[in-house]
Amino acid sequence: MNLIELFRHETDVAAIPAGQAVFRAGEPGNVMYVLISGTADVMVGDVVVERAEPGALLGEMALVEHAPRTATVTAVRDCVLVPIDAARFHFLVQQTPYFATHVMKVMAERLRKMDLRLLEAQAKKPG
Amino acid sequence: MNLIELFRHETDVAAIPAGQAVFRAGEPGNVMYVLISGTADVMVGDVVVERAEPGALLGEMALVEHAPRTATVTAVRDCVLVPIDAARFHFLVQQTPYFATHVMKVMAERLRKMDLRLLEAQAKKPG
Repeated sequence: MNLIELFRHETDVAAIPAGQAVFRAGEPGNVMYVLISGTADVMVGDVVVERAEPGALLGEMALVEHAPRTATVTAVRDCVLVPIDAARFHFLVQQTPYFATHVMKVMAERLRKMDLRLLEAQAKKPG
Repeated sequence: MNLIELFRHETDVAAIPAGQAVFRAGEPGNVMYVLISGTADVMVGDVVVERAEPGALLGEMALVEHAPRTATVTAVRDCVLVPIDAARFHFLVQQTPYFATHVMKVMAERLRKMDLRLLEAQAKKPG
């Protein structure tokens, strides 16, 4: 699913200049974002776990869980993002099952990456 | 959402005795499971990342991504599980938006745990 296509006519966007944070770990997370243009780094602590490119979904965890952000996302190049609040998110999930499946796919990819990271850490351990 | 309630009248179940694997890392993953009774360990390499209790969702990543299993799940106590194949999964997502939201919530919780694990690993690093 091409999220850029789905949100291309959006007028209510957030423009974040390079170097500035889209959101920070620990903040409450009431919206998620679709990255329309630009590049952003997703950092957990001081590790970049993902370099987000246009079409990426950001901040969906806090929205789904009603919990604080776990990651800090910073614009590496000027970013334009579409914010999606909880009401709209649930509307999209209900009206567009492919959107729901897409969100799950993105989360599964991220979980897989984290699992691989854990496997690598085990391989590096002496003994 | 109580998944046990949703699947309580299911007759097509899998019974896995304690000590046996529900699935293993590397296997193709065509179904996910809802754990109805019993306890199972989710292992990534030799680390138990989760102890699954009744109501837990297992194996959803491979189903969503059409990719091999990343984790091995082993019954710690005798398990009864409801297998859900891709067709039924997509039907559930379309017909039961709360099911979709629940799957996302479970995945978000797991991602959050993995993020915390990464943060802890950073904190332990010397320097």
